[in-house]
Amino acid sequence: MRRSRTAAFIAAIIASVTIVLGNNVRLNPGQAQTASGELTVDDLRARLRVPDGYSESFQFLGSYAVAAGPGEDPGDLHTVFASPGTVRGYLDNGRFADGAVLVKEVFAATAEAMTTGHVSRAAELKGWFVMVKDGQGRIAADPLWGDGWGWAWFDAPSPTRTSTKDYRAECLGCHVPAQGTDWVYVRSYPPLR
Amino acid sequence: MRRSRTAAFIAAIIASVTIVLGNNVRLNPGQAQTASGELTVDDLRARLRVPDGYSESFQFLGSYAVAAGPGEDPGDLHTVFASPGTVRGYLDNGRFADGAVLVKEVFAATAEAMTTGHVSRAAELKGWFVMVKDGQGRIAADPLWGDGWGWAWFDAPSPTRTSTKDYRAECLGCHVPAQGTDWVYVRSYPPLR
Repeated sequence: MRRSRTAAFIAAIIASVTIVLGNNVRLNPGQAQTASGELTVDDLRARLRVPDGYSESFQFLGSYAVAAGPGEDPGDLHTVFASPGTVRGYLDNGRFADGAVLVKEVFAATAEAMTTGHVSRAAELKGWFVMVKDGQGRIAADPLWGDGWGWAWFDAPSPTRTSTKDYRAECLGCHVPAQGTDWVYVRSYPPLR
Repeated sequence: MRRSRTAAFIAAIIASVTIVLGNNVRLNPGQAQTASGELTVDDLRARLRVPDGYSESFQFLGSYAVAAGPGEDPGDLHTVFASPGTVRGYLDNGRFADGAVLVKEVFAATAEAMTTGHVSRAAELKGWFVMVKDGQGRIAADPLWGDGWGWAWFDAPSPTRTSTKDYRAECLGCHVPAQGTDWVYVRSYPPLR
């Protein structure tokens, strides 16, 4: 009896280790998975926000310097991150796993003379674009979800409350050229190549 | 007797969990620490290379779009990463911890018209700058070490063999304006602000 209780205790410790290693990210409410690893619809919905601690736990994908036109300094600097395991899953399976979260920070850029040249870097944070993979299209009757993803923009002061209302009108247009790679500009992200 | 053996087993499991959580990075040879947490000189030296798996395990600090001058498209895109725990340590203590590793990727940039504007992004990888914090200045008689850091450049095909020979001649010049913040352009990195 004592032995089986001890064994159960050890099993619980090992199980908790596995959970820690498999989810190396500060989880937001709703980011837990079911025992089978299947995400619930509520889990998916809860991920459509700026994830707590993503700058520490998410993997960097790539950055963009965005100018109005040639010959102009970049006005914005974009930096893109993926939730833990997303890159590895994409490289293994050629697709984004259900529940994968992509975060794009949008900064105003500032340019100045530095020792390496005329350099643009991040100044104030304007906000974040967040995409959450809904691989089975389970969230259908919601104007922030469709085409295999949840889509939302968050102004810098409001990381949990989106100001967008309709991804088709407010998000999708910019992604049309990337439709062939599941609406994501994969070629811009060295870890996904 | 059985009880104490079980307790020892549980303690061993808990200890291994602690090690896994505290070193959440694929360690290179020489990146192990002594039992007291003190790095040996050999440990420090072994870190002066491009760390295995850094793009997954390191924390992104910031990026630069580097043009030759105003009105020109960026020729290079730089993306900078810090070893796990470096940012948290810096925010807590106001300095880089002994053994902290900074990696700057240098990409050739490519510009094109995208839906958001005239956008520069990473094309081919040219190589990496690596800095390793030697907080106590223990490595003195080595031309790649000094001013509190190890400094080296690695061409893209050679992540473990530096082509630089003397950090004073080849690295330090570009960092002089950042001498007041331990030679690092801290203000460019949002997680350090």
